[in-house]
Amino acid sequence: MPTDHIVVTFTTDDKKLADNMCAEVIAADLGQCAQIEGPITSVFRWHGEVHTEHEWRVEIETTAEKANAVVEHIRANHGIEVPEVVISDIEDNVMIGGSAPA
Amino acid sequence: MPTDHIVVTFTTDDKKLADNMCAEVIAADLGQCAQIEGPITSVFRWHGEVHTEHEWRVEIETTAEKANAVVEHIRANHGIEVPEVVISDIEDNVMIGGSAPA
Amino acid sequence: MPTDHIVVTFTTDDKKLADNMCAEVIAADLGQCAQIEGPITSVFRWHGEVHTEHEWRVEIETTAEKANAVVEHIRANHGIEVPEVVISDIEDNVMIGGSAPA
Repeated sequence: MPTDHIVVTFTTDDKKLADNMCAEVIAADLGQCAQIEGPITSVFRWHGEVHTEHEWRVEIETTAEKANAVVEHIRANHGIEVPEVVISDIEDNVMIGGSAPA
Repeated sequence: MPTDHIVVTFTTDDKKLADNMCAEVIAADLGQCAQIEGPITSVFRWHGEVHTEHEWRVEIETTAEKANAVVEHIRANHGIEVPEVVISDIEDNVMIGGSAPA
Repeated sequence: MPTDHIVVTFTTDDKKLADNMCAEVIAADLGQCAQIEGPITSVFRWHGEVHTEHEWRVEIETTAEKANAVVEHIRANHGIEVPEVVISDIEDNVMIGGSAPA
């Protein structure tokens, strides 16, 4: 049972970018696993107008130690200058089982 | 970094209602953004029988100050008399970046 | 408003297994409702290689009292020997309304 379990989340309208980001982060051993959900519909205001677009939500499971490196990777490779990234500490959740082969 | 970050969540089996609710809430400046996921499969008991239906999950990002108005809007416009609405305070999460234009 | 609200989450690459598990758990009154999201894309390392596969995420809403029975049911019926199961206590969330007929 990990004592330190972090999920880093961001969205993008570019599925290919989501795929690449996950593959790179996992290949670099910056996270245990990643999941991509979507397409989801995002609704937001931009310069006073309501916009709707399709996006993909990416969740990367990592540790406190590696979370900053994951965020740096996202910021360096995301198409948006300052993407919104959410870091959730879900340490309070109880995790049972799961395999973690190298 | 917001000190107050709330997500209001509900589900509906009516995609058009989900779309309209998001557009109205964002247009009225009751939330920063909204996301619609689905279709998801919901399984529940109703009068002793197991039912399965397709639904859409709506998540509206807002502030503590505006959360009640969002909930009131959902309850007034949702097709079900008393829909289940979940209000999550995710203030403990760390949010990095993201743009918030008017 | 429940004082005790638990969500048990797991993933599987078998949609039929997800459907059956939800129907069984709800029929046995081990949870109030269940939701299946997907397909989602999972990216992970396995013996040094990056793998990608489609999975389904299952979330079962239950109570603290019944959570262990839900986990036991999942472990006994999941195709993987030791599936990863996450138990989240979302008691701090505020739940409004929702119907809970027998």
